[in-house]
Amino acid sequence: MAREKGFRVIAEFSIHPIGEGTSVSRYVREALSELKKAKGLRLQVTPMATVIEGEKLSDILPAVEAAHESLFRMGARRVDFVLRVDDRRDKKRRMEDKVREVV
Amino acid sequence: MAREKGFRVIAEFSIHPIGEGTSVSRYVREALSELKKAKGLRLQVTPMATVIEGEKLSDILPAVEAAHESLFRMGARRVDFVLRVDDRRDKKRRMEDKVREVV
Amino acid sequence: MAREKGFRVIAEFSIHPIGEGTSVSRYVREALSELKKAKGLRLQVTPMATVIEGEKLSDILPAVEAAHESLFRMGARRVDFVLRVDDRRDKKRRMEDKVREVV
Amino acid sequence: MAREKGFRVIAEFSIHPIGEGTSVSRYVREALSELKKAKGLRLQVTPMATVIEGEKLSDILPAVEAAHESLFRMGARRVDFVLRVDDRRDKKRRMEDKVREVV
Repeated sequence: MAREKGFRVIAEFSIHPIGEGTSVSRYVREALSELKKAKGLRLQVTPMATVIEGEKLSDILPAVEAAHESLFRMGARRVDFVLRVDDRRDKKRRMEDKVREVV
Repeated sequence: MAREKGFRVIAEFSIHPIGEGTSVSRYVREALSELKKAKGLRLQVTPMATVIEGEKLSDILPAVEAAHESLFRMGARRVDFVLRVDDRRDKKRRMEDKVREVV
Repeated sequence: MAREKGFRVIAEFSIHPIGEGTSVSRYVREALSELKKAKGLRLQVTPMATVIEGEKLSDILPAVEAAHESLFRMGARRVDFVLRVDDRRDKKRRMEDKVREVV
Repeated sequence: MAREKGFRVIAEFSIHPIGEGTSVSRYVREALSELKKAKGLRLQVTPMATVIEGEKLSDILPAVEAAHESLFRMGARRVDFVLRVDDRRDKKRRMEDKVREVV
């Protein structure tokens, strides 16, 4: 199924270094600032991840890669992340719609 | 490290049936209503999951299991879920604190 | 859909402490030894997780909880885990079947 | 921390369509065949995912994107995936090493 104009990919990204102390918020802030540099992405920070909405997966992946690399530039030696992607092409929706439909 | 009083486990839960159509919101609503029945959990619905805050992991797991089982009661034949847990015992924090520290 | 006898839940569990150094294998070994204590579970260690097969979700969750708690007993101050569950009740299969069907 | 030559990123990828029936193995096979086309990646299929080892994250992400897109070409209307990445730059290791250290 080809993507028509106006459809959005919704993803969730969670990242942290392993071995740089129990507090990792300064690393998460840096990752977030990288995501913000990417054009055309909408972001929502939650207690466990950052939700990312973009037009195409190929807009989201470079931002994720930049965020990942930014932790190493800060000195991290080991970085783990989880990216979950939900791509639906039979119905237009934005991130707010997904919440509205279930609450 | 033993858990002292007042510490909270923060988790994230995402569930859907596979093979019951592309729209799964009625299943997610049912799962959510099961989570709400559990005593002592705080919930936040995001576009990709439900964040769960509880006093102990053993308060969260039965709620997750009830939510999982509820989809089968609705007729689902296959159910997948992801549960991510973040349990920190060196610092008290609630779900809002995790967001506040990074934005 | 009720679970008939002989069906199996297949799950995947990945755990690590945050802030106890970049090498976490001794913690993973401990978690694994807790999983092994649980009756009736089959385990397969992969480079990124441990696959768990059990008769019911309620057999798997206590083992996951015991594994989680074991890291704190070793001194970890913060522990993160991911549990993914695939529960299918329209077809009997074991963990090997899932691999056989796709390779 | 910059990546030195010889270091490897280890990842795990799990993908399925939502709403194309309870059996998704033909979709997983297609995704796997896309991953195999990528140069320089090592793959290991497990019951819950495919483990991917590559030299850099930027070698893995295009393969993941191709796999994702291949499900839509087969007719899927909604596709979900989970990608977990473990990137360690203080110690050389391959996917087998991660298993050997814990079993």
